[in-house]
Amino acid sequence: MDILVVNPNSTASMTDKIVEAARRAADEGVTIIGATAVGAPASIEGHVDEAMSLPGLLDQVRQAEARGIDGVVVACFDDFGIGACREIATGPVLGICEASVKAASMLAMSFSVVTTLPRSVPIIEELIHRYGLSHMCRRVRSAEIPVLALEEPGSNARIKVRDEILRAIEEDRCEAVVLGCAGMADLTTWLSEETGIPVIDGVTVATRMVSALVGCGLKTSKINAYAAPNVK
Amino acid sequence: MDILVVNPNSTASMTDKIVEAARRAADEGVTIIGATAVGAPASIEGHVDEAMSLPGLLDQVRQAEARGIDGVVVACFDDFGIGACREIATGPVLGICEASVKAASMLAMSFSVVTTLPRSVPIIEELIHRYGLSHMCRRVRSAEIPVLALEEPGSNARIKVRDEILRAIEEDRCEAVVLGCAGMADLTTWLSEETGIPVIDGVTVATRMVSALVGCGLKTSKINAYAAPNVK
Amino acid sequence: MDILVVNPNSTASMTDKIVEAARRAADEGVTIIGATAVGAPASIEGHVDEAMSLPGLLDQVRQAEARGIDGVVVACFDDFGIGACREIATGPVLGICEASVKAASMLAMSFSVVTTLPRSVPIIEELIHRYGLSHMCRRVRSAEIPVLALEEPGSNARIKVRDEILRAIEEDRCEAVVLGCAGMADLTTWLSEETGIPVIDGVTVATRMVSALVGCGLKTSKINAYAAPNVK
Amino acid sequence: MDILVVNPNSTASMTDKIVEAARRAADEGVTIIGATAVGAPASIEGHVDEAMSLPGLLDQVRQAEARGIDGVVVACFDDFGIGACREIATGPVLGICEASVKAASMLAMSFSVVTTLPRSVPIIEELIHRYGLSHMCRRVRSAEIPVLALEEPGSNARIKVRDEILRAIEEDRCEAVVLGCAGMADLTTWLSEETGIPVIDGVTVATRMVSALVGCGLKTSKINAYAAPNVK
Amino acid sequence: MDILVVNPNSTASMTDKIVEAARRAADEGVTIIGATAVGAPASIEGHVDEAMSLPGLLDQVRQAEARGIDGVVVACFDDFGIGACREIATGPVLGICEASVKAASMLAMSFSVVTTLPRSVPIIEELIHRYGLSHMCRRVRSAEIPVLALEEPGSNARIKVRDEILRAIEEDRCEAVVLGCAGMADLTTWLSEETGIPVIDGVTVATRMVSALVGCGLKTSKINAYAAPNVK
Amino acid sequence: MDILVVNPNSTASMTDKIVEAARRAADEGVTIIGATAVGAPASIEGHVDEAMSLPGLLDQVRQAEARGIDGVVVACFDDFGIGACREIATGPVLGICEASVKAASMLAMSFSVVTTLPRSVPIIEELIHRYGLSHMCRRVRSAEIPVLALEEPGSNARIKVRDEILRAIEEDRCEAVVLGCAGMADLTTWLSEETGIPVIDGVTVATRMVSALVGCGLKTSKINAYAAPNVK
Repeated sequence: MDILVVNPNSTASMTDKIVEAARRAADEGVTIIGATAVGAPASIEGHVDEAMSLPGLLDQVRQAEARGIDGVVVACFDDFGIGACREIATGPVLGICEASVKAASMLAMSFSVVTTLPRSVPIIEELIHRYGLSHMCRRVRSAEIPVLALEEPGSNARIKVRDEILRAIEEDRCEAVVLGCAGMADLTTWLSEETGIPVIDGVTVATRMVSALVGCGLKTSKINAYAAPNVK
Repeated sequence: MDILVVNPNSTASMTDKIVEAARRAADEGVTIIGATAVGAPASIEGHVDEAMSLPGLLDQVRQAEARGIDGVVVACFDDFGIGACREIATGPVLGICEASVKAASMLAMSFSVVTTLPRSVPIIEELIHRYGLSHMCRRVRSAEIPVLALEEPGSNARIKVRDEILRAIEEDRCEAVVLGCAGMADLTTWLSEETGIPVIDGVTVATRMVSALVGCGLKTSKINAYAAPNVK
Repeated sequence: MDILVVNPNSTASMTDKIVEAARRAADEGVTIIGATAVGAPASIEGHVDEAMSLPGLLDQVRQAEARGIDGVVVACFDDFGIGACREIATGPVLGICEASVKAASMLAMSFSVVTTLPRSVPIIEELIHRYGLSHMCRRVRSAEIPVLALEEPGSNARIKVRDEILRAIEEDRCEAVVLGCAGMADLTTWLSEETGIPVIDGVTVATRMVSALVGCGLKTSKINAYAAPNVK
Repeated sequence: MDILVVNPNSTASMTDKIVEAARRAADEGVTIIGATAVGAPASIEGHVDEAMSLPGLLDQVRQAEARGIDGVVVACFDDFGIGACREIATGPVLGICEASVKAASMLAMSFSVVTTLPRSVPIIEELIHRYGLSHMCRRVRSAEIPVLALEEPGSNARIKVRDEILRAIEEDRCEAVVLGCAGMADLTTWLSEETGIPVIDGVTVATRMVSALVGCGLKTSKINAYAAPNVK
Repeated sequence: MDILVVNPNSTASMTDKIVEAARRAADEGVTIIGATAVGAPASIEGHVDEAMSLPGLLDQVRQAEARGIDGVVVACFDDFGIGACREIATGPVLGICEASVKAASMLAMSFSVVTTLPRSVPIIEELIHRYGLSHMCRRVRSAEIPVLALEEPGSNARIKVRDEILRAIEEDRCEAVVLGCAGMADLTTWLSEETGIPVIDGVTVATRMVSALVGCGLKTSKINAYAAPNVK
Repeated sequence: MDILVVNPNSTASMTDKIVEAARRAADEGVTIIGATAVGAPASIEGHVDEAMSLPGLLDQVRQAEARGIDGVVVACFDDFGIGACREIATGPVLGICEASVKAASMLAMSFSVVTTLPRSVPIIEELIHRYGLSHMCRRVRSAEIPVLALEEPGSNARIKVRDEILRAIEEDRCEAVVLGCAGMADLTTWLSEETGIPVIDGVTVATRMVSALVGCGLKTSKINAYAAPNVK
């Protein structure tokens, strides 16, 4: 089974990290195909970055689909372009926000999200409203760190994330935490040990969940909303 | 006051029709600047078309912003890219679905939407859920006509739309109808007369509503979600 | 275009202030007709005051309708009697809560409301639930000032309002603020400058929005809920 | 225990019928005090009728409160003025829509409402949304009979109501039916026998529920929203 | 009228206390039949305890039904097994969470719940979501006391509960408080006097509400979800 | 990885069929441990059957947990007892309704459910409300077949199911269908081919999804709601 894990920004080092996380997560029979959205912004911080990454993102999905990919993970927590990817792909497509908040809802009766930037907070809240899980989401929090700081050696980003999770447990009385960013997969085990609750990484979960859907023989519906794009 | 009305598809004849509708709608002191999303698909039928039109759409908004535009209308009923336009623009930005369903909620206790293609139905339902108006929306219906058929002389598209509105009144017991497409503005008066209920066109309403917000001195919030894009 | 702006309490000095705000807001071709609900309480503080102001309010709308008014603004943030006004009026009718929270939802992904009295807070929360915007409303706050204090020279009401907005930004992480009272229109610009976010006044926005709907040729639906009252 | 049952319209014969139903419903130790809203419209058909009945309705509640009433039932299915009555009354106050849909939610997992006039349908739908029971309400239906027809001997109103209930069972798959009108209490037993499901009358249920709350020693909260009206 | 009040845990002293509360609450003509779920856990603290108490709980309802009981109160705030009891019983069945939060929604525009253990908080939140009252519920709070501490003389449990209610008024701005436990009925009057707001006990309210439904001649619907169990 | 798939009814032949489906679904490294709820009813048709199966169900989970099971699937579409299983189990636990409707929400923008008995319909609707997916669920339908008919050779159950799916596509305009029963796994491929849309079986999907969560290293949260049961 071949799963495309596409980083919709153009920072190849982040793709490497994401693909590494996906490979660590993937089951034996699963081959992870990494891809970077050529021409996209270096990081996705807000709606314009999302929009500008779409042509590159869809291009990767189109190419992979042509080569017969079985499923697709879009590795950005803002879950944009998922509908478009679902039109192109035959197999299942998951964004990492959808995958991880749905996983959280299976492991706990309440959860909080810890993301990087304050500007992502309302975007993630809207996604959770769309997925119907607002009643289980205590709060979307920002650890106030730039996305790329997670890449920098010597940055105290991981400490900030841990402290925000501890605040979430204390103040929100949440029972699980979702990491609201594609670049934190390597912190998951450490954070879970430090804080004592399930800490959920989207890349890991989305990779496994897409594989699960493929393994069930399920494909994206081709009636109405996700029908293949009309040729023009 | 200068309002940009941007057609996110690349069909210039549709832009002409939309701009004409906006000009008919606009108040005296308002100048309508029409624009077409260069490089976008010829019509927006589904998520991929939406995505592929974004660079061209944002480009028009960026150019208009640089020239000091006061407000923006995005003339496609799928309301995609609105968040990105709001990051770029200083003034208010409205999609025509948001404008028209909110207008409908001010004129009636319930409404239905009549759109062109079946594939748009779930997309519009999701938008209405996002805008919080599902409890007032009886049903999103498709008149089963291709978007571009509205442009063709001799097509019976207008009859189909009228008949679908009559069915909506009969079956949904709705009290107003929203036209779920940017290309039906010229039918509004006729449809309202034929059916006896308010028939709402998004281009008309969005143009007037953006002007209203500008007239109030209101601008898009620049805190968090709609802050100007980070320079990379 | 003639727009009735009716103050549903009987304090004429408040009507003057409201009408002044509406005139400042109104577009060139719009004539604002002010009216005071004769026989209503001096201020609307709670449900009984609302109820007791209704006959006077409807009387003003009936008279204006007889003279051919084009649209109606009801200038109290509790948005009571709107359905009744919509039955009487041919044109569009807006309460200032509905107008301003819907405007807020077009300018920001989240907002808080700052009203005067604590007793209004649950009433406004219920309105926002009815309008379907609870998921965008962070909190309804009271600045704990009596409605009429806004009229008194030397009162520190405006400082209290500003400070409550600053607390809303800090504690609620809201991206816009709606002023939950008809008497604060003259503070809007100052408050927005002091706080750095969009501050929205209902009288201003409702006046412009009703004009916008009238300008579109839209009228209140006369099917079912808002049909003209039965003659008895 | 004294319970006020107030008919907010001015038709005394309807008050008689309502009071008779309340007395039939009431427990032994409960005295039903009937009242008619003097000066109100002859029937409540829509928002204006609601509004015009409010001064008379509140007057009755004020008088009864002065005489030490223990609880209040407002016998119109539109549940208007309830907040105002709750400000005036010390004891519990219930509208018959709230009482009966909450009762239905205790007896079945789904219900439909059968009311008289089509114009009441969206009003009742909004009430049910406000009470948080939309997910249990299959449909609000109109039997298309004028309110006063229920009073006319020889009218086939009761047959129309029964047939609408049978349609609700067949088409809505509902498990209980709420009668959406104050004047159908005498039909309840017959309708329930004819249709085989619980048929719930609001006057009956509201009388018993208010008595129950009074019997528990519970009173209306006097903090914030339902605090006694400010004296002016 | 005979009402079964069943304590789904096996602690007979708690049954005594609950039955005493129900008798105090009950109207003259009502006979309270107390019952203890034989074989159930000593207290219900979480989902497993709920599950293990079900056979004993249903057994009591079956026996009472055979003897012709008129209605049933299940005296645990977690409201589990209610659907099963409704299948068995002919008359109405109420859990004490459902009864008390619906009562709260009739007396105030907002309420908070004060329960005993933190682990019950998400369970109660989910119940309130199911009953459709999340928009009126400010917060579910735990006073952090073990269920059985309420039985111990000399414990400061009642002080802890009072202090938590005072915090709820201060921090949540709630207008009523529901006691989230079956064993606090004797504290209600004292708590209400100490705190100045309606404090609602579930056993009291459920007993009265079930009696009210029985008094109306209403029974559990036997169509679909609550039909009598199939014989196997 | 060892996954317990427990059939909460006592019909061993149904367990065999379910386990067979789970094994067909399971990934290579996964060992499926089947179990039958000893002492439970022969089929789960309504709330009482659910309740009576709980002790046997929890017993199986306790035994498996003692032997170090990695995850649990509860193979009944009513999703009862899931919270109790989550308290007992260290690893993830999924009911088949939750797994399949969440899968459906990843593959299509709308879905319908086809279950066996009419009495299950409101139960499933309530589950979907609890999972937050009501806005994506078009309708829960019953094919009106007894659960055990699926086991009988020569029954036309499968034809009835297919025809109900075709009606769902036609009438509900749904884009995927969830099979609302544990015993239909072997029909999935055939049904999907006959109807042209994704047809989702809960046993298959839950097995794969639990394995996915285990594969991610995720466990059930042991804070608050799903903490291990208190020892008594």
